Amino acid sequence: MVKVYGDMLSGNCYKIALLCSFIGLDYEWVHIDILAGEARSEEFGKLNPNQKVPLLVLENGECLWESNAILNYLADGTEFMPTNILDKARVLQWQFFEQYSHEPYIAVARFINTYLGMPEERRAEFDSKREGGNKALGVMDAHLKDNEYFVANTLSIADISLFAYTHVAEEGGFDLANYPNIQKWLTRIKDNPRFIPMVREA
Amino acid sequence: MVKVYGDMLSGNCYKIALLCSFIGLDYEWVHIDILAGEARSEEFGKLNPNQKVPLLVLENGECLWESNAILNYLADGTEFMPTNILDKARVLQWQFFEQYSHEPYIAVARFINTYLGMPEERRAEFDSKREGGNKALGVMDAHLKDNEYFVANTLSIADISLFAYTHVAEEGGFDLANYPNIQKWLTRIKDNPRFIPMVREA
Repeated sequence: MVKVYGDMLSGNCYKIALLCSFIGLDYEWVHIDILAGEARSEEFGKLNPNQKVPLLVLENGECLWESNAILNYLADGTEFMPTNILDKARVLQWQFFEQYSHEPYIAVARFINTYLGMPEERRAEFDSKREGGNKALGVMDAHLKDNEYFVANTLSIADISLFAYTHVAEEGGFDLANYPNIQKWLTRIKDNPRFIPMVREA
Repeated sequence: MVKVYGDMLSGNCYKIALLCSFIGLDYEWVHIDILAGEARSEEFGKLNPNQKVPLLVLENGECLWESNAILNYLADGTEFMPTNILDKARVLQWQFFEQYSHEPYIAVARFINTYLGMPEERRAEFDSKREGGNKALGVMDAHLKDNEYFVANTLSIADISLFAYTHVAEEGGFDLANYPNIQKWLTRIKDNPRFIPMVREA
């Protein structure tokens, strides 16, 4: 059985759990407490030299890190990965968008607000995340005006990647009432019978 | 013929030109002047709603954006993309590492220093990029201690992605003398007979 090292307060880790539920893949979850600094331990650094979760460890001991790389690996050959080469590249387009133009704003604002309790010395950084986060949500909402999902009008790992932090964007101070198409898309994903919520286990 | 919209001062755009040279793909280059704000024009926003270069436009008019998604699309079926599913995921692992843990430090520091001329009001931001950039270079150097390239010991788009901003890291104030394995890897890539330098065309 594969092992997933992660912390469910992290949307990046939740992505993996959500895909595993959708495809019915059993795995062992190894809790790494981000707030306690466990991802920065010397021991964990031997598994992922970049000291971040999630981390996938295969049955033969080989390691793979970066949430979206893990999603691409696990989704290969399933209905959550398109087969057309251009559609596959579009999945990556939205996943790179997520990591560069979405997560650094929305996830970081959420972390400062919800997990660090908005310390005064990070208020300016929190405020600086508004514009970029709203820009990303605007790009998503415009795409979803004419599309039910991000790629090929079917639920794929592109949606799973973007769902992870978008559905908790309000914890980072973003008002999803401004994004009606995003709201409908969130509901569409939550209505999937294999959907699981993002609940921290420890 | 495909069109690539880009600006060669951007390592993200240079990645595409470098791969096209390696695989011998002809393309039309459409210069978008980043410093003049051309990527943020309304017209360009119709092609890429996220208003960033590079952008690939196929012969049938379909658009693909995000540098690393474009690399994956163009490299499919070439020697620059491994065939093994785990190796493919490792290419993505290093590309997501590049976009999240490397580019936001090294490329942004270079942009502030070299293209904005280090304005005083961005000095603190420039300084804040030191630690993250050196951490990324350290992760790369450690990997290259035992590996000639990033994935499967052969030159792939993972190397092209990481090469783009690493080989000009000194323009962002990073001292590559501290990273001997990176230096050897840079030379290995530059020695490829199809290598082309990063030269801004306008």
